[in-house]
Amino acid sequence: MKVAVVGATGYTGGEVLRLMVHHPKVEVVAVTSKHSVGEPLASRLPFLKGQYNLTLEALDIKKIAKKADLIFIALAHTQAIDPVQRFINSGKKVIDLSADYRLRSPTLYKKWYGTAHRYPAFLKKVVYGLTEVYRNKIRRCDLVANPGCYPTGSLLPLYPFLKEGVIDTSQELIIDAKSGVSGAGSKPSSKTHFPELSGGMAAYNIGRHRHLPEIEQELSRIGKKKMKTLFTPYLLPVNRGILTTIYLPLKKKLSQKKIDAILNIYQDEFFIRRREDSPDLAHVRGSNFCDIAGFATDSGRTAILISAIDNLVKGASGQAIQNMNVMMGWDESLGLSAPGLFP
Amino acid sequence: MKVAVVGATGYTGGEVLRLMVHHPKVEVVAVTSKHSVGEPLASRLPFLKGQYNLTLEALDIKKIAKKADLIFIALAHTQAIDPVQRFINSGKKVIDLSADYRLRSPTLYKKWYGTAHRYPAFLKKVVYGLTEVYRNKIRRCDLVANPGCYPTGSLLPLYPFLKEGVIDTSQELIIDAKSGVSGAGSKPSSKTHFPELSGGMAAYNIGRHRHLPEIEQELSRIGKKKMKTLFTPYLLPVNRGILTTIYLPLKKKLSQKKIDAILNIYQDEFFIRRREDSPDLAHVRGSNFCDIAGFATDSGRTAILISAIDNLVKGASGQAIQNMNVMMGWDESLGLSAPGLFP
Amino acid sequence: MKVAVVGATGYTGGEVLRLMVHHPKVEVVAVTSKHSVGEPLASRLPFLKGQYNLTLEALDIKKIAKKADLIFIALAHTQAIDPVQRFINSGKKVIDLSADYRLRSPTLYKKWYGTAHRYPAFLKKVVYGLTEVYRNKIRRCDLVANPGCYPTGSLLPLYPFLKEGVIDTSQELIIDAKSGVSGAGSKPSSKTHFPELSGGMAAYNIGRHRHLPEIEQELSRIGKKKMKTLFTPYLLPVNRGILTTIYLPLKKKLSQKKIDAILNIYQDEFFIRRREDSPDLAHVRGSNFCDIAGFATDSGRTAILISAIDNLVKGASGQAIQNMNVMMGWDESLGLSAPGLFP
Amino acid sequence: MKVAVVGATGYTGGEVLRLMVHHPKVEVVAVTSKHSVGEPLASRLPFLKGQYNLTLEALDIKKIAKKADLIFIALAHTQAIDPVQRFINSGKKVIDLSADYRLRSPTLYKKWYGTAHRYPAFLKKVVYGLTEVYRNKIRRCDLVANPGCYPTGSLLPLYPFLKEGVIDTSQELIIDAKSGVSGAGSKPSSKTHFPELSGGMAAYNIGRHRHLPEIEQELSRIGKKKMKTLFTPYLLPVNRGILTTIYLPLKKKLSQKKIDAILNIYQDEFFIRRREDSPDLAHVRGSNFCDIAGFATDSGRTAILISAIDNLVKGASGQAIQNMNVMMGWDESLGLSAPGLFP
Repeated sequence: MKVAVVGATGYTGGEVLRLMVHHPKVEVVAVTSKHSVGEPLASRLPFLKGQYNLTLEALDIKKIAKKADLIFIALAHTQAIDPVQRFINSGKKVIDLSADYRLRSPTLYKKWYGTAHRYPAFLKKVVYGLTEVYRNKIRRCDLVANPGCYPTGSLLPLYPFLKEGVIDTSQELIIDAKSGVSGAGSKPSSKTHFPELSGGMAAYNIGRHRHLPEIEQELSRIGKKKMKTLFTPYLLPVNRGILTTIYLPLKKKLSQKKIDAILNIYQDEFFIRRREDSPDLAHVRGSNFCDIAGFATDSGRTAILISAIDNLVKGASGQAIQNMNVMMGWDESLGLSAPGLFP
Repeated sequence: MKVAVVGATGYTGGEVLRLMVHHPKVEVVAVTSKHSVGEPLASRLPFLKGQYNLTLEALDIKKIAKKADLIFIALAHTQAIDPVQRFINSGKKVIDLSADYRLRSPTLYKKWYGTAHRYPAFLKKVVYGLTEVYRNKIRRCDLVANPGCYPTGSLLPLYPFLKEGVIDTSQELIIDAKSGVSGAGSKPSSKTHFPELSGGMAAYNIGRHRHLPEIEQELSRIGKKKMKTLFTPYLLPVNRGILTTIYLPLKKKLSQKKIDAILNIYQDEFFIRRREDSPDLAHVRGSNFCDIAGFATDSGRTAILISAIDNLVKGASGQAIQNMNVMMGWDESLGLSAPGLFP
Repeated sequence: MKVAVVGATGYTGGEVLRLMVHHPKVEVVAVTSKHSVGEPLASRLPFLKGQYNLTLEALDIKKIAKKADLIFIALAHTQAIDPVQRFINSGKKVIDLSADYRLRSPTLYKKWYGTAHRYPAFLKKVVYGLTEVYRNKIRRCDLVANPGCYPTGSLLPLYPFLKEGVIDTSQELIIDAKSGVSGAGSKPSSKTHFPELSGGMAAYNIGRHRHLPEIEQELSRIGKKKMKTLFTPYLLPVNRGILTTIYLPLKKKLSQKKIDAILNIYQDEFFIRRREDSPDLAHVRGSNFCDIAGFATDSGRTAILISAIDNLVKGASGQAIQNMNVMMGWDESLGLSAPGLFP
Repeated sequence: MKVAVVGATGYTGGEVLRLMVHHPKVEVVAVTSKHSVGEPLASRLPFLKGQYNLTLEALDIKKIAKKADLIFIALAHTQAIDPVQRFINSGKKVIDLSADYRLRSPTLYKKWYGTAHRYPAFLKKVVYGLTEVYRNKIRRCDLVANPGCYPTGSLLPLYPFLKEGVIDTSQELIIDAKSGVSGAGSKPSSKTHFPELSGGMAAYNIGRHRHLPEIEQELSRIGKKKMKTLFTPYLLPVNRGILTTIYLPLKKKLSQKKIDAILNIYQDEFFIRRREDSPDLAHVRGSNFCDIAGFATDSGRTAILISAIDNLVKGASGQAIQNMNVMMGWDESLGLSAPGLFP
């Protein structure tokens, strides 16, 4: 199959390309860029030297639709709205790594992204690409809205408990999520300037991060009840990874054994690995794995869940490829089964 | 005044020495070490070269009691029990940076530190050196049990809310505390081996860290009610600092304005700085400051508090010197007023 | 083919396993460990969870020789001498990642490793596994002494200039080589303790690093003349990579064009990538690539060469697998063609 | 004495302020900024909260000259040319941390900084503020051109050897200098974006860094002979520090003893500390010390010198304050005697 990567020089675009090197069924035929049209791919992404013989081109929908069967959109938020539509209308399959088709409510989209969505009716039909949860829908769709990194790290450990109906939805769910810097993208800024961040750590956008409505939307859909969530994100001085800690209010006391049993829903999932101690960012770095642990507490009122993902892989480009594999009916781990890079 | 540092080559001992360089009223007359007796101080701590003309000596209580008026004990847990007693019995003032005199209950001490305390009756008389909270008691005492780093980072933001009586003690208090590696001490281990930690992050000792009983003891003493706490500590790939996030269950909704007013109890405290956005480890690095912010949430059921300290300064040696200043009736900031090192 | 990894829990052993996951022609059938016999591999190397279903076993030469056709030895220096012999005597192919068979002179071995070599006569027959240089010899051999990380990073950029005969061997060659910490192994020590190293950098073993005689041996062999080398190694606060800068004294002035032409000897080498600006550790991280740049200087007396490798891949386990591929007559890049992890 | 800091929100400006907190003879009366006029200092530099009660003001030469006796100029290159002149003409003492008055040759200035210098005749009269070398001139002057960070780290170890006349000036001097990121300033860029740099390392501007002519100028002045220098700078993933390695071609063999004797010229210098092993960036972090070691080599043709400084302290703002102390006839270490921050 032939694929194109739109927005190839950002971190998620580059990561799709890194992972695709070993995909046995896919050929990358086009890569686009806004600012580097005409440059060889490797001059912008030197770590890919020797892997692709591609030149960055402008985003010309028709031209790309002619070459490729499936398109990965790795554009900034609000920039993907139109290209996604046009590729879909050209009969192409699309995996959108931006946030533009994740929220089902146009009102929420406008509130959080500052722009009215031009295809509001369409939003409800889009499949949300949290693979382990929506696999059956992904199988039959042409457009996947690939989940955000924080939502992936939060929803995967929460899903079994939502399904099981053990959460006390009258209380607040607390998500304390520590993210590596690559999640902030490749554009330099004061917050991501090395000397400002190295050796430091701070929270940001407390209670008002754009991934919060995305998390709440899915909590409600999966749990069939509105849930109130406190979401505290942090920027960590590491390149990759999100360590998510969830304090889960329980309807009734859960023993460690019961928590383990609930998490067993994942026993056949290749990309979800159970840990008895805390997951560690270092053990998933560069891989599509999501490591999860669940801890009972003495009081039993609360369960503590911890997950670790690589924000650029399972939290973005890896899950995008996993979704492509599902859409195509291929083995889900094609191109993705490599272990992480440790140390 | 003449002081000695017992256990000078560990991180807290070295930090007492770093800070003491500029103390205008104190001379360091003795430094002890277990493994480096006879070596010049600077051969073990090269960053102190040119600052002290001292040789590391063995811990000979009598000899040191003859030279020094006040002794900083920077020994490992359980090692400080006897030296502290003997220095006190020699009529010396002592500031103990170990955990050996922090817990008032001998039963808890034995449970958490594995050794029966040899002076159980004494424990209740010891002053807990959280300076901003127990300043009046510190003023009149000869022995200060210097608080642990996690308890300092947790209790300072909690204190105003405990005093105000706004916490719903029927619910669980959540403390999610991210610590720099120097808190693990200077002894190499697998967890603190550079390649294992760099680029990684994990929680550890969930619900069973030794600082938990210390935190709960003080919550009960200050809040006059037993409180149940969930305490999740993490090791961060940074040298210094603890970023503590507290999810505080409230009796009734608190507005941002009210939260600000409660935190105003600290308005005359030099070492406590209010932040409107999240405190950042990078802004307190190397300093005795504790930066604090409090956030109201939409629901109003929970307040979010965030503090940043340098674990080796306000979380250990800096607070120890602050306590010495209080004990001696000096200006509390002597030797401690330097800003942090940024970037 | 069936292979075993002897010493699987160290960094080079673990790295052989990480890379082998995707080797299409090889099955790992045994992994040994000194201290963790009986434990599942993934309990010691959690990043490999889900990849191998292997239990760590003791090093029993006969048992392993029965299972495996080729053995990777990833033991500490001096520990590999006997196992290598015994596997060779059992008719197995061996790739030794230790230093035990790299030096051809038993006298030098004793001088630098402190132990007399028990098979001195054998040393001259061993093939030194610098793949791009000794490929033809590797093809026909049963034992490869896999090069050290510093020698690999130094010799690959030097090789074309040695071949070309442009070096002024009457002068000193300067190698200034900055290494990531994983090169120091997985055993914790004071030098590699996170707080000691993070934010720091220092040279070590100036003029007396064990890789110096290895470098000088190969310089003489390839260049056909004894060369005197100044070798300054450093420990960097990064996990992986060696950035090697070489100041090359020239017989006569070389232009940039001529330097480029000399480096063109590598134009068909997949794993050697030419850079016009400085190679960067970040661009080879996790990969088997060696990025090289050569710079003419104004005076023309000296050329500056810079190479970047991942010390655990091209500097150890990746090159070991590359050598296996050559020994077996397979495509040299099998299992090794992945790009690095960036960012 | 009253001082002003022009360009207070950059890293060198902020560092002057950090260090000045404890200067017993100086009051900071004005801080200027281009983009944050009217903001409280601590809102831009939160680590300084609680230290100064100053508001950032525009650069109004007359207004500032009225308030302050001495002015630190911490502006970008080419921006300082006029302000320096005008403050000098107002009868003020000036310490210029920019590069604008360091080069004595207007031709070189234009070549390297791209702008013709408006006061070419003036350049020869400016004192170059390498304190340990030009102390006597600094004592009597009104304007100090504060040295660059690389020149400081290079010239301090070289000075004793230049004085002693042992360098073979017919050969090339090699300077291989590894710098922390704060040297690149506080303005974000792609090269200093955390994910691009963390875990990486590369050289840059090989043979064409702006500090090269500054180094060569001083080598000639001190050594009384033109010297050709190869200068290779690197960006390190650490915040602070320059580790400089110098390969020094010798007229005749120097023993270790002789090297030690030559370095003894510094025995009474408080800020220069001799090391027997390699200096380490971690041991000078945050301090005004320059740690130096010299190593003889087997051949004796070359000596290896290694220095470690904090680029923002001894390499910029600390040396600026040291120069102020000298200009004023004060104890040279006022405000500067603190040890570094370790770990």
